Amino acid sequence: MTTTKAFANHAADKPMVPFTFERREPGAHDVAIDIEFCGICHSDIHTARGEWGPTTYPCVPGHEIVGKVRSVGAQVKRFKAGQTVGVGCMVDSCQQCASCKEGLEQYCESGFTGTYGAPVKYEGGYTKGGYSTHIVVNEKFVLNVPENLNLAAVAPLLCAGITTYSPLRHVGVKKGDRVAILGLGGLGHMGVKLAASFGAEVSVLSHSPGKREDAKRLGAHQFILTSEPANIEKYQGYFDYILDTVSAKHDLGQALSLLKRDGTLMMVGASDQPLDLSVFSLIMERRKIVGSLIGGIAETQEMLDHCGRHGIVSDIELIAAEKINQAYERTVKSDVKYRFVIDCKTL
Amino acid sequence: MTTTKAFANHAADKPMVPFTFERREPGAHDVAIDIEFCGICHSDIHTARGEWGPTTYPCVPGHEIVGKVRSVGAQVKRFKAGQTVGVGCMVDSCQQCASCKEGLEQYCESGFTGTYGAPVKYEGGYTKGGYSTHIVVNEKFVLNVPENLNLAAVAPLLCAGITTYSPLRHVGVKKGDRVAILGLGGLGHMGVKLAASFGAEVSVLSHSPGKREDAKRLGAHQFILTSEPANIEKYQGYFDYILDTVSAKHDLGQALSLLKRDGTLMMVGASDQPLDLSVFSLIMERRKIVGSLIGGIAETQEMLDHCGRHGIVSDIELIAAEKINQAYERTVKSDVKYRFVIDCKTL
Repeated sequence: MTTTKAFANHAADKPMVPFTFERREPGAHDVAIDIEFCGICHSDIHTARGEWGPTTYPCVPGHEIVGKVRSVGAQVKRFKAGQTVGVGCMVDSCQQCASCKEGLEQYCESGFTGTYGAPVKYEGGYTKGGYSTHIVVNEKFVLNVPENLNLAAVAPLLCAGITTYSPLRHVGVKKGDRVAILGLGGLGHMGVKLAASFGAEVSVLSHSPGKREDAKRLGAHQFILTSEPANIEKYQGYFDYILDTVSAKHDLGQALSLLKRDGTLMMVGASDQPLDLSVFSLIMERRKIVGSLIGGIAETQEMLDHCGRHGIVSDIELIAAEKINQAYERTVKSDVKYRFVIDCKTL
Repeated sequence: MTTTKAFANHAADKPMVPFTFERREPGAHDVAIDIEFCGICHSDIHTARGEWGPTTYPCVPGHEIVGKVRSVGAQVKRFKAGQTVGVGCMVDSCQQCASCKEGLEQYCESGFTGTYGAPVKYEGGYTKGGYSTHIVVNEKFVLNVPENLNLAAVAPLLCAGITTYSPLRHVGVKKGDRVAILGLGGLGHMGVKLAASFGAEVSVLSHSPGKREDAKRLGAHQFILTSEPANIEKYQGYFDYILDTVSAKHDLGQALSLLKRDGTLMMVGASDQPLDLSVFSLIMERRKIVGSLIGGIAETQEMLDHCGRHGIVSDIELIAAEKINQAYERTVKSDVKYRFVIDCKTL
């Protein structure tokens, strides 16, 4: 067992505070990791605050994890001590169902085991995430991290990166395609960088004029202020793809109207309220809407390798653990460019 | 000019009454048709009653037309007098844009010319449809009708048939796929027959227990009563495709939950109210929603030929013109199995 320092909250309305627990001993197929950095994802906040159904407390969030291998189990072939590795949103899945066999563990028919808050037979009965100094994970769910990248800024690739990479790849975004990123936050800023790296013509759709400069700096070719009716008029039927990263309730009809015939709206922002869908906006141009959930393990590795080759990381604000509660408040207000990452040696 | 007897209404709140007007002389590329049968589509009622924006009156609806060629223009090569032909929802399009060049005239970038109510330079400035004894149409928009089929029952293929055929083909429904048809009305009953003809395992999803026998008779392999929670539970994640023909506001989340991972909900029923879309139901299984509008001319011909080979027609109730208003009332109440067709010699 490894005594692990962490931050946790003890009830939905309580702040994150220091917390200590024991990590299990690594089994034959496990990798024990000393965590260096962990990103703060919106999901962490929703879960810690009990907004996505019942949460088990104490809750240790965190699924954007980068660290160094401390030790490996006897059967582990792919990793060795000292190697830089990552862990994302999943730490296990059934490995038997059609989805798992296709490398789509995120759609495991039994439900994947989330990196935090998922029922397991160890460590008190449920998983605890990356706001901690150590973690033990089955090697199948451990990723190689390219050594050339800034490791703190790699952490958000494990969720925000793969969440945007997977749908862009799934629909086949390629050189010259017109891709819009709707919303420029943690997900959106990765969407811009990744879509640009695939050779697409990238536009940012945002109602915040203040995002214009950032959009360009991140690699967007144009910035379209959606609060200007003239802009919406000008770009009717313009895009091949729109990646919708907005998690608040918003107008799908406006976004759909900007797509070409046979264009695709990719939904990765999960609003907890239903969105209004005008069926005419789909029918009249045979448009599509498709959802996408993170990505499989093989695809996550592909994404990390791609980011290594292209020098892509997240834009981050590195914080000490004692600033987590403040970071939560700022994240909820979208006051972050573009992801908070916890320096885990401060735990 | 050909004096044409028709039925028209003269205001949104007025009934269909006898009306006489002049059809233009056929030009070099036109086909003059003696109309034998015309189906009654929900769109006719919405348009006649001004429910889809302003309507020009007198309004002669009808875009499910079957008849015999009376004469052809000097340049017409594909048709000759006496031949059985059909006309659907379109009588013209720009023929220049990318959509037209791909044979997708229904998505013409300038907007196709609808069979009724569309602005034109002849016959008083707007098109008049198939509730009439004659029509003159550019040969590119005239279809060959297989002679082996019951012609009255062919009429609804020109709208209800192609509207369901096109999305089933577009997504690639094939032998063994699990296809559900949501709603068993004019569109739905054609969806059942066509999906079955492609070799799919066809289910009807309906909240009307009284549709069970018909579903089986039309070729469905199972009938699933959606008002039974146990049925919804049983078929979670079951279908590859669902063809949603319901035009009233309804629960997309329930339909989506019945789809497999990567399953597709095809929307052809056009609700005039926005539908509630829970983004989670798309994201969690990477499901898709796609709209579809009728079909192109080449695909409509392909559909008619397919129906000829498979002996597929609509289930109809043949009426005299004087019963049109009564048929409208019954159509609005879904009291028709499954399409009213006007016997145009009664006009």
